[in-house]
Amino acid sequence: MDTSTVILQIAAILIIARIFGEIAANFNIPSVIGELCAGILLGPTFLGLIEPDGMIRVLAEIGIILLLFQIGLETNLQNLVNTGNKSIIVATGGFVLPFVTCFGLSYYVFDLPQLVSLLIAGTMTATSIGITMRSLTDIGRDKSKEGQIVLGAAVLDDIMGVLLLAILFDFSQTGSIDLTSAARILLFMIVFFLVAPTIAKSISFIIRRFEGMSKIPGLVPTTIVSLVLSLAWLSHAIGIPELLGGFATGLALSQRFFIPFGVSLRADPEFSDHVHSEMKPIIQLFTPIFFVMVGLSLDLSEIDWTSHFFWYFSVSLTAIAIVSKMGGAILIREKFARRVVTGMAMVPRGEVGLIFAELGRTSGLLNNEIYATVVMVIAYTTLFTPFWLRLFYKNFGKYMDD
Amino acid sequence: MDTSTVILQIAAILIIARIFGEIAANFNIPSVIGELCAGILLGPTFLGLIEPDGMIRVLAEIGIILLLFQIGLETNLQNLVNTGNKSIIVATGGFVLPFVTCFGLSYYVFDLPQLVSLLIAGTMTATSIGITMRSLTDIGRDKSKEGQIVLGAAVLDDIMGVLLLAILFDFSQTGSIDLTSAARILLFMIVFFLVAPTIAKSISFIIRRFEGMSKIPGLVPTTIVSLVLSLAWLSHAIGIPELLGGFATGLALSQRFFIPFGVSLRADPEFSDHVHSEMKPIIQLFTPIFFVMVGLSLDLSEIDWTSHFFWYFSVSLTAIAIVSKMGGAILIREKFARRVVTGMAMVPRGEVGLIFAELGRTSGLLNNEIYATVVMVIAYTTLFTPFWLRLFYKNFGKYMDD
Repeated sequence: MDTSTVILQIAAILIIARIFGEIAANFNIPSVIGELCAGILLGPTFLGLIEPDGMIRVLAEIGIILLLFQIGLETNLQNLVNTGNKSIIVATGGFVLPFVTCFGLSYYVFDLPQLVSLLIAGTMTATSIGITMRSLTDIGRDKSKEGQIVLGAAVLDDIMGVLLLAILFDFSQTGSIDLTSAARILLFMIVFFLVAPTIAKSISFIIRRFEGMSKIPGLVPTTIVSLVLSLAWLSHAIGIPELLGGFATGLALSQRFFIPFGVSLRADPEFSDHVHSEMKPIIQLFTPIFFVMVGLSLDLSEIDWTSHFFWYFSVSLTAIAIVSKMGGAILIREKFARRVVTGMAMVPRGEVGLIFAELGRTSGLLNNEIYATVVMVIAYTTLFTPFWLRLFYKNFGKYMDD
Repeated sequence: MDTSTVILQIAAILIIARIFGEIAANFNIPSVIGELCAGILLGPTFLGLIEPDGMIRVLAEIGIILLLFQIGLETNLQNLVNTGNKSIIVATGGFVLPFVTCFGLSYYVFDLPQLVSLLIAGTMTATSIGITMRSLTDIGRDKSKEGQIVLGAAVLDDIMGVLLLAILFDFSQTGSIDLTSAARILLFMIVFFLVAPTIAKSISFIIRRFEGMSKIPGLVPTTIVSLVLSLAWLSHAIGIPELLGGFATGLALSQRFFIPFGVSLRADPEFSDHVHSEMKPIIQLFTPIFFVMVGLSLDLSEIDWTSHFFWYFSVSLTAIAIVSKMGGAILIREKFARRVVTGMAMVPRGEVGLIFAELGRTSGLLNNEIYATVVMVIAYTTLFTPFWLRLFYKNFGKYMDD
């Protein structure tokens, strides 16, 4: 495509996302909903002005990597560890329950083939970290206790989602369950999460030492973006979503991160702040492109709105996907209101779900009708959760004050 | 291409450009030379790791648009107008003389066909604003009097270069000189430079008014980038290089720009400063990609280094391209040292020259040998001018103090 067309598309995405986001915020709706709607408007569903591919996809990917970097940077690892047990319960429950119930619905109630049902169930497992954390940020609750639990849980169920994807992919190829590739990815992940922050921390230490000597401006933006993207690429290369590479880098550069034996690489709050302030405009520039991209990917024009199957299946799948996702959160020991809001925050499906659906479509396992249904359910969980979250906080937020 | 490959390429470009730039700066060589060399290293000349196209080209284009935006933002329009006459002399002399002499060399001395000679001459006309201004910035002379003259002249000869390109393109198609399309472009340009700053100023005024009401962070980075890219696209759409659209936007948003009848839209230094500080990291992130891209585009591997024609022609063309470019500057009424340094600063050819060369190659007018020669001359003027400039300032800078 022509360079200048892409430049116009980027300009259009930025300004329309901003306008829709501001309008949403003005009606007290989380602005992320506005950005998603901007994507749905610009994309194949309505105007068809922008295809969700190529260049825009790369910028969107950079956007979500940088957003997760920022989330990592602002995360207090100690808090994350403190709420770790709860995150594990929320993630495991919120992964197993949707998988089992959505499989049951597809296979036993709607009589879909086994592999198709497994894929649909897979689509409903992983929470969208980006949308969830952005929704909490929009209503100023990202640093809350439930925010910490949700962040940990969303990272964990992304990991589980990727493992499941590897298993299902093998199963769709060979017809038998083979855990080797999943085990390999799991091993890589463990190594990655041990090694990546150490690499990131060490390199950021070099950058910091070098800062005084640098003779040309722009050291922090160029080197930090390069570092974040390199580790995102590395994570992708070993089978982990790129955004988790961004998260690991952010964690490593956060103010309170200590690497094992890294006594000499003490955290430097001043450098963390400096990185934060230089990166802020860059992150703010790229992240809306990601949320617009999610909207672009939700092609609702493929849906046959007169189909009975579509309505029965999508409504029941949506209901089960929402209720089952909240199952894990109900089990933790917290105030009831916090358990509910934690479960609600886990509801949005996004990136990983769309990857499952796309895999199903390109492999021919999901026909257009089922694909459209799944996309519709993802769209629903993504578009309405931020809205319900805000409403819940408004009415029951007072029961969560510690 | 795979999204994650592009992400790795971006990371590689950023870090290698930084390392080469810092090494150059450490040896007191302008860092832009380091970045160009990084591109030559990564590109088809040596490693062949990155193709100069697709995604990277878009990011590079955004880089040069944003750099020109920054140059515009930092420009004092009054100074530019004050040195306007000198800029016109420098631009006209530095455009006509290289065109005439390089045509003469190609047509009469090397007996090349008429149209080929015209294209070669066209390649040697326009100064690279990006490389020239970046070289002056590297040595801290971008705000000097000669810096102002060079900026105005470089903008003007880019405009002349584009008009010439339109004329030659028509000539290559029809075989006769037809000035209508050039006249149309010229008209568009005049309208654009009258209208675009007014649009930019008005929109920036709206953004500024809106700033207090905005409920989501990131207003300035997203809206200003969107504004700059939109006007760059508009300029491209009417036949002007995109980077001049960026420059016009920057000028309009600079502290001292007043639009006609715009008494109510008074310049707001605070807002200008705010735009400047929020945009800085974004500009610093994108611009190195442009200079690496120029290096990637200079494919020196196509040159047959044993060819006699190549040596005779490239050496004589280089000599004439340098000497003739300085002709315009010698005519202005300034201290002699300033005249020389102004002429030297005008020497680098870049973007527009490469567009001429590419047009010649794709239309089949320039064979590989001549194309390679032209690229070599561009490479020489681009790579060595910053170096000579610094050397000249070191030895004769004292004669330019006012």
